[in-house]
Parts: sequence; structure tokens; C-alpha cells
Amino acid sequence: MKKVNVVFYCPSCGFRSRGSEYYWRCPKCGSPLEVEYASEWKPSGVGLKRYASSLPLTPPKSLGEGSTPLIELDYRGVTVKFKLEYLNPTGSFKDRGSSLAIGLAYLLGYRRVVEDTSGNTGISVTAYASLYNMESIIVMPQYAPKGKKALVKALGGKIIETPTRGDAAVKVLELARDNANYYVAHTYSPLYVEATKTIAYEAWEQGFNGDIVIAPVGSGGLFLGLHKGFKDLLKWGLRNRRHVMIAVEGSSTIRLYPRLYGGKPNITGESKLADGIMVPKPPRLNEIVEALKETRGKVVVVSDKEIVEALKELYMYGLIVEPTSATVLAALKKLIESGNIARGNEVLAPLTGSGLKMIDLIEKIL
Amino acid sequence: MKKVNVVFYCPSCGFRSRGSEYYWRCPKCGSPLEVEYASEWKPSGVGLKRYASSLPLTPPKSLGEGSTPLIELDYRGVTVKFKLEYLNPTGSFKDRGSSLAIGLAYLLGYRRVVEDTSGNTGISVTAYASLYNMESIIVMPQYAPKGKKALVKALGGKIIETPTRGDAAVKVLELARDNANYYVAHTYSPLYVEATKTIAYEAWEQGFNGDIVIAPVGSGGLFLGLHKGFKDLLKWGLRNRRHVMIAVEGSSTIRLYPRLYGGKPNITGESKLADGIMVPKPPRLNEIVEALKETRGKVVVVSDKEIVEALKELYMYGLIVEPTSATVLAALKKLIESGNIARGNEVLAPLTGSGLKMIDLIEKIL
Repeated sequence: MKKVNVVFYCPSCGFRSRGSEYYWRCPKCGSPLEVEYASEWKPSGVGLKRYASSLPLTPPKSLGEGSTPLIELDYRGVTVKFKLEYLNPTGSFKDRGSSLAIGLAYLLGYRRVVEDTSGNTGISVTAYASLYNMESIIVMPQYAPKGKKALVKALGGKIIETPTRGDAAVKVLELARDNANYYVAHTYSPLYVEATKTIAYEAWEQGFNGDIVIAPVGSGGLFLGLHKGFKDLLKWGLRNRRHVMIAVEGSSTIRLYPRLYGGKPNITGESKLADGIMVPKPPRLNEIVEALKETRGKVVVVSDKEIVEALKELYMYGLIVEPTSATVLAALKKLIESGNIARGNEVLAPLTGSGLKMIDLIEKIL
Repeated sequence: MKKVNVVFYCPSCGFRSRGSEYYWRCPKCGSPLEVEYASEWKPSGVGLKRYASSLPLTPPKSLGEGSTPLIELDYRGVTVKFKLEYLNPTGSFKDRGSSLAIGLAYLLGYRRVVEDTSGNTGISVTAYASLYNMESIIVMPQYAPKGKKALVKALGGKIIETPTRGDAAVKVLELARDNANYYVAHTYSPLYVEATKTIAYEAWEQGFNGDIVIAPVGSGGLFLGLHKGFKDLLKWGLRNRRHVMIAVEGSSTIRLYPRLYGGKPNITGESKLADGIMVPKPPRLNEIVEALKETRGKVVVVSDKEIVEALKELYMYGLIVEPTSATVLAALKKLIESGNIARGNEVLAPLTGSGLKMIDLIEKIL
């Protein structure tokens, strides 16, 4: 067992872990856990480890996660700063979280990680597990994209196929009961939230000093991480502006809109293209709603038609992203049209995943 | 016409261009041109523009090229530093050169760029052309990979298909004769060499201080750029070691081996997987041979069997690269086995292109 001391605690029931234990959720009440650590602003070096002083652990290895480019675009008079998270090592922002989560698994002496996902997280988890020479088992529905399955296998992961996504969630719990398996559980994991706060730190260091932050919400790890990061910058006196969080959800998976506004959004059509944000019951939903209220934020709901339009525009700027990433531009357009974002505003919009993984789909829809 | 003053000159016949003219090769003798400019070490900021003081021009826009991660691996006692060039905006190191080349086209007032390629350069050129709202025409053989064609189209490029690669080269010359078209000609272009020298600068700033640099050689832009970059660092007194250039070529396209050693290499089997380095007649071949002699370098020839083995190993480290990128590890293995690289040596190996573009192929061969 390597030396590591990461304490998890439960804000709901008060549970606290011993430093060498791992729980993917609260063993007493089932709530998502938080992680306890001292945090200060002492940036040094590049990549995720630049912010080691404000992260719960320093992973011993790296695939080059973090330090992604921030590029600026004038969009109808609005300054949009796109954070190119799709240029992370496995093509998505998940690599920041996987770096911490799998790093912890390694430090705690685990030899095998398990996860249920049909998307970018599976690829990311497998890559980091292989980096540490650990086994990985990814449980996914048999109808998951062929390309993503191929990539998990090429990276050395084992795939267990289940009939549905729901069955995958059941199967992985069975695996999680084996103490030899480290269940990543990225929708619960506080490490994925802690890791994505570094996107806010980086964006600020790269010159973003606006108010508005637009993020797609699947499990909410990205959204909550950005929120946390900007709160830190304010707390540390580095930034003196309050930020406003804009959550984007797809018309097929509406969870936030009714919580914030009551009732249903006025939108027709599905949002099947935004597969990255189709998480029906995110464990951290209450936290997301709180962040929206705390920052006087908004929820924008987008559909496939709007996603395709935005995706086309992004490719015409040379940005090779997946459809889920285009939701932020689709939302921005709606906010400009409704007068909620005006000329002169500065907006931060992370682009979450690479389009290179799904050229077949891109070819069909563009 | 924007203000720009980039002077091209021909080391063979002495031709010099006026600063607002563009030639893809010497209009007098047909040789590859060089570009004239003052160069000094004044790094500032991130990305390619960090090295603006030693580049012939500063492109007005960016897709986030440069500042790629350097990750370290202990490989049989040898310290390998992989430069993750596949994490550039369109998934290959070509983005550095395209940034300069298309930036120049824009500054010179061109509205359309043309290029012949069946590979990463086409995607890269199209992305940068679209960034500047310029047209792009990519001429490629009809048997070019479907995914790469789809990507060029999605990025807004027009494709002209020809029966063979040779026909593409003829067709593009026809287009190049139209003065409204900017012919990128990356195998000739000095801008692609100038841009890739920044990989050496970055690697050194990121902590590489070994002697050995291994690079795959297609047209030689990457190889010559690295060589130039390390010469600069020595000239400026930043590094005090001489470097050794190792060129990797595929068994199906041998050009350097006979020039350096006479005769043929002792290798069986093809190297069709390394499509990125199948350039039968690189215009800068003499320069490459000179760089090898000057640095007392070596040529290593690899075949598909060795490429597949190396590719498997790279994926098992979590590195999602294309087969051409694996040639550097295949070469490294041979050099270790032959005793040419020993334990304790420090090696720089750029990984050139993303495997995400060709998941179908990866699935088949791994």
C-alpha cells in the first residue's frame, strides 16, 4: 500500500472515511461524497499538476491532461472564449477527473478499476488504468457505438456488454461489491468535480475575465467544477467579479428546467445527438440547482436541430468537436436572440469532446 | 492587402522574392525555398506564438496549435520523452505548419488555398482555411480513407478526387497556375520546417536535455524542423549538448538508407501502415541526408510487423496514436536491441498523429 491520505465525507449524514479507504458513495446514506483537503493558490508547472496545491492528490503519472488551449472568437459582437477540452489526451475533459480517480486507485493499491458508461468516460478510464498497468472493466449496453468499444479494447480494457444501459448500472454494482475492484462512478465521484475546477483556473490564467460560463450538464461534474473553480478565484481575491452559470440540457433529458422555472420548456424535437448529457438522474442534481440559484444562472434547453446548426458553425471555424460540445454554442445563440447575452459580453464555453471519435456520425449529420 | 513582409530565397540559385510575393518553390530553378527573417530567443505566452520572435510571421488567428504535452516513460532503462503532437487541434503536428502557411495566405490577401494530400495535411489545411473564412480545395486520390474525406468536407473543404496519387499531384499543379490560388505544397514549404522547430524549443523548455531525437521521415518537415530547433538552442547557448538525429523510414519507401549506407537494408515485409511517411521523392531529401551526416545520425527502417507491435505497446500506455506515430517506438526498440541506444540514455520521440481518426483500422490491427 502506497502512502496516501484522502478523506471522503458526506455532507448529508456526516460520515467520514479513514484516509486509506475508498467509497464511491456514502456507505451510510448513499449520497455523493465530498473530499476533504487544504486548498491554496500556488500554481506551478503545466497540466493538471500545475494546481496540485488545490487538488486532493497528486497522481504519480500523467498522459498530458490539462493546459488545454483557450481560443477567442467574436460571435455576433459577443466575445466567446472556447476552452478546447477535446484536446485532452483521450479526446475529452473527462481525462482531468480520470487522472485523479485512477491515480487514487493506484495509490490505494487497487489492481482493477470498473466503470459503467457508454461514452467518453470509458475510454478515459481505460487509458489511465493502462498507464498504471492496472486492469479495467467497462460495462456498457451492447448498442454502444462500435468505435468507442473498439477504442476501449485497443487501450487494453475489458468490455462487459449488457442488453440496456440500466442493466449496465446493475451489473457494475455487482462488480463494485468485490473489494478488489475500484468502482470509479464518475457521476458520483467528487474527484471529477475537483479536477474540472482547474478548467476555470486555466481559463482565468489564459485571460478570461468575463461573467458568463456556459456548460452542458450531464452528470454535472463539469458544471459543478467550473462553478467551484470560479468561487475559488473570487475567494482567493484573484478575480473580483461574480460569475453566472448557464446550464445546457437536451430536450430529451430535461431535469433542471422544471426545478428552476416550474413547468416545461417551450421546445419541440429530441436531443439524441447530445448523448454526452443524457443522464436522467444525476446524483448531484440538487447541487447543480443550488449553483444556478446562487449565481442567478439560467437553464437553456436545446434540441437536435439547434445542435446540428451549431455543430456546422463550429466545424466552419475549424473546431473538430462532437455533437454534445455544440450544445454550448446552440445555447449561446438562443441567449443572444432572447437578449440575455448582449454585445460586449465575454463568455466562457468549454468544448468537451472530440469529433474525431465519431467521424461516421459527423459525416451523416453535417 | 494586409501588411506582411516574408522574403523567400533559393539556396540553390540565389533567387530572392519581394516581401509581398508567394512562391511554393523557386520560380527559377524549382528547388525548395527558404525563408529569410531575424530570429532570436524571446519566448512569451503559450502555443506556437510563444516563439514569435524566431518565426517568419505571426498568424493573426489560432486554433490552439503548439504547447503539446511532453510525457516521460521508462522504456527498458531508457528515458523516452514522448512529445504528444497528436494533441494538436486537428490531431497532428501539421497544424504548426498550417498555422504559418495559411496565416501567410490570409495576410497576403488570398481567398483560396489548394493542396494535394491524402492524409493529415488536408484536414489541417482545411481547418485553418475555414478559421480565416477562406476556401480550400484538397486534391486526393479516390481511394483515400473515407473518414479523412468526411472530415475535410465537414470542415468546409472541397475535394477533387483523382484516380491516383500521381494524378492528384498533376491536378494540383494546374490549380496552382491560377494566381488566385495559394498552393500550400507542404512537402516543399519552408514554413512547415520553421513551424516544427518549435517542437524542439518546447521539448527543451519542458525538460528534455538528452542527445537523441527520433523522427519519422515522410517529406522531412518534422525531421528538419527538429534538427533546426536543436541547432538554434545550441547556437543561442541555451543547450550545451550536440544532438543526434535518427530518421525512421518504412520498408516500402526507402530513400535515406542507400544514401547513408549504400545498399539495401536487411528487412522483409511492407510498411503500408505507415502511410504518413510514404513520400517517394521528398523535395528536401538532400537536406535530410546532410542533417544525418552533420549529427552523426542513423537511419532505421521498420516494417508493418514492427509497427503493429509498437502500436500495441503505445495503446497499452494509454497513447491513442496512428500507426505512423508508432514507427518511432519500433525504431527505438531496434536501436536498443542493437546496442545503439543504452540504458540511461534520454530520447525525444514525437508522436505525430491521432489514432482517433482511424479507429476502424486500429480495431483491425490491434
